[in-house]
Amino acid sequence: MNKRKQPARGSGKCPVTFALDIFGDKWSLIILRDIVFKGKRHYGEFLNSAEKISTNILASRLAKLESEAVIVKTRDTQNLSRFVYSLADKGRDLLPLLLDMIEWSVKYDPQPDASGPVISGAPDRLLERLHEDRDALIAEIITGMEERNQ
Amino acid sequence: MNKRKQPARGSGKCPVTFALDIFGDKWSLIILRDIVFKGKRHYGEFLNSAEKISTNILASRLAKLESEAVIVKTRDTQNLSRFVYSLADKGRDLLPLLLDMIEWSVKYDPQPDASGPVISGAPDRLLERLHEDRDALIAEIITGMEERNQ
Repeated sequence: MNKRKQPARGSGKCPVTFALDIFGDKWSLIILRDIVFKGKRHYGEFLNSAEKISTNILASRLAKLESEAVIVKTRDTQNLSRFVYSLADKGRDLLPLLLDMIEWSVKYDPQPDASGPVISGAPDRLLERLHEDRDALIAEIITGMEERNQ
Repeated sequence: MNKRKQPARGSGKCPVTFALDIFGDKWSLIILRDIVFKGKRHYGEFLNSAEKISTNILASRLAKLESEAVIVKTRDTQNLSRFVYSLADKGRDLLPLLLDMIEWSVKYDPQPDASGPVISGAPDRLLERLHEDRDALIAEIITGMEERNQ
């Protein structure tokens, strides 16, 4: 008698592929960066990023990230005609990856003004603290996001 | 008299954008995964990945990663008609990011067989060790790659 395989509990994908299928494109991580470091919450704010995302790509990436529960879309209590986007737990758990990316880039592409903040809106001394107290830095970034959403 | 700005030493880009412009697509990181965890070194091996990369995309991503000094292309000493691809330091420094990605995926997409290796070719107990001794794990992965290239 043949034993049948257990049905897969997960996607059955390689974990690298699983992750890339959700955010493995340039724009998804730029949207997450805007939420995390630049305090952006509204559609129009994302649209105004320096990288000049087009409105149809922005709409499709926001919808994808929402459907994957990486971000949450809620009605803006101060203006009921618009929505606010924020990180779900699944999105917050991408913070280590975003910080790795920043650390890597700073190593291989030193920014012109090394004394200033690398990303406007990022916590003070982001770079030094990436090595020193990474967990505290992540906690601080999350607290900052929560305060903005109150 | 107007002070002129210092010329940029770096790209002047946000570090998240800098990184994404180099490997912010699905295929670049799959190629890196194949080198790091699956011990792949030749064009034909990359072409045979489960994700079914097309030959023109593979060629363009390899050329881009080589031009960005993330990978190195050398002639295969055992078969001079073909080339071997391996990680440069800039590519090795993407290991923490790859591991973050794996950790995130395992959290949000548990694989069907939790007792087996998550990625074939990955070091033993990859998942437990991601938390416990991350630096030792990275060193072990790098040693494994070096041994394969000898």
